Amino acid sequence: MKVAAIQMNVGQDKIENVINAGMYIKDMARLGVDLVVLPEMFCCPYQTELFPLYAEKEGGVVWQILSSLAKQYGIYLVAGSMPELGEENRIYNTSFIFDREGKQIGKHRKNHLFDINVTGGQYFKESDTLCAGEDLTLFETEFGTMGVCICFDIRFPEMFHEMTKQGAKMVFVPAAFNMTTGPAHWELLFRARALDGQIFVMGCAPARQETAGYQSFGHSILTDPWGRVVKQLEEKEGVLIEQIEWEVEHKVRQEIPLLRNKNNKMITSNLLN
Amino acid sequence: MKVAAIQMNVGQDKIENVINAGMYIKDMARLGVDLVVLPEMFCCPYQTELFPLYAEKEGGVVWQILSSLAKQYGIYLVAGSMPELGEENRIYNTSFIFDREGKQIGKHRKNHLFDINVTGGQYFKESDTLCAGEDLTLFETEFGTMGVCICFDIRFPEMFHEMTKQGAKMVFVPAAFNMTTGPAHWELLFRARALDGQIFVMGCAPARQETAGYQSFGHSILTDPWGRVVKQLEEKEGVLIEQIEWEVEHKVRQEIPLLRNKNNKMITSNLLN
Repeated sequence: MKVAAIQMNVGQDKIENVINAGMYIKDMARLGVDLVVLPEMFCCPYQTELFPLYAEKEGGVVWQILSSLAKQYGIYLVAGSMPELGEENRIYNTSFIFDREGKQIGKHRKNHLFDINVTGGQYFKESDTLCAGEDLTLFETEFGTMGVCICFDIRFPEMFHEMTKQGAKMVFVPAAFNMTTGPAHWELLFRARALDGQIFVMGCAPARQETAGYQSFGHSILTDPWGRVVKQLEEKEGVLIEQIEWEVEHKVRQEIPLLRNKNNKMITSNLLN
Repeated sequence: MKVAAIQMNVGQDKIENVINAGMYIKDMARLGVDLVVLPEMFCCPYQTELFPLYAEKEGGVVWQILSSLAKQYGIYLVAGSMPELGEENRIYNTSFIFDREGKQIGKHRKNHLFDINVTGGQYFKESDTLCAGEDLTLFETEFGTMGVCICFDIRFPEMFHEMTKQGAKMVFVPAAFNMTTGPAHWELLFRARALDGQIFVMGCAPARQETAGYQSFGHSILTDPWGRVVKQLEEKEGVLIEQIEWEVEHKVRQEIPLLRNKNNKMITSNLLN
């Protein structure tokens, strides 16, 4: 499986962002990429007050273009995330997932909203305009089961624990860390989630733009089941392409059989709490 | 709270090892240390075939010395671990925990046995002679609730998730990584568990000895709720002493309120699996 994370610039114009993503997808298909992942909020600047203005329903214009792109180029598309207008006008931070036929095969609504306030660092409060999803998101490919979560979700190992238990071999994480949490936690979290679950984990971030209100850390990344960084970008626009070596996953799971050793009493003890 | 991890040498003579630990405990008490943690298998060489030979029942000679030391010097003692002879002659890798009066206030039997076989690297199979414990271990102090797990347990984030949920502010980890898993995973795991749970985590390992069959990685470590390494030893015999800054924990939990944001549906979904 050949995968690509598109660390693209995100501007004010929604459709221009989608077309830009489309150009990248076309290039990736030419290079034989099987699955493309876009950044969190790839077609909307990362500002809470803009989410309601850019939000669309499932099946809306942006959704239709994404579906067409996946079909046209015959690739799996984890379409980063965008503001989704849901039931009762609730807005979610949502990743739509399409198969090679352009069919939607998954949809992840960010479970854990990004509300932080670091002294002398980053402040952000997604819950001002967004609602949280509640479901795990897995989808099937000819390469096996894959998982998706969004940005702040990566701080919750129980999500990865569940996805791994349900068979995820790799998890894709559209994300946009910032200049406070990025240098402190980005690489650590991607390495740890990969090591704990003995899976590949791929993060895709927007490029950093000096003019943007929210300074993205960038550093789109691929980590492996031994907890290594396979590849990592810097902050500028660019693409991370890599062939996934599934034999690494198989080997690590044989060598350190974590899944077999799980303490079942511990897992089921959640029943009582 | 002032804590100390004793990265001691472990020799063939059981009682000599306990006396050596006692000398360290005496020194630590003089320095105003509140809690001392010893390494995994601090009084028995780390070899599966020796565990049955060195094993003692709870309340045995080593246990009595440890209890006396805690009382004598008025400190909390997380007594690393030792082979414990349990019910029906089963042997466990057990950490006894004593309060300032020498009273046992906790006992952790390693939940996840260390059975690994890394190509060109480390082979070890604890399950040849040991049985696995099944319980979480928390204990109370005037500084708050503390948790204990042993070595390989640290690879299972669900244990930390549970301990944190039950109020653990800090977790102590007697451990003995090796020259394969140590350089690859030691620091990563201690930083990740601290960051995920927003707690302090302290690992205490035996010193590396060229003559030993099992080469300990050493590197006793303290990590903080922001995922930083506060202090780390190298491989030689030594002591890691540190005053715990609880305000860091309070600050990080305020700034990035992970516990408040937990997706409860996700947690209770374990019910169904």
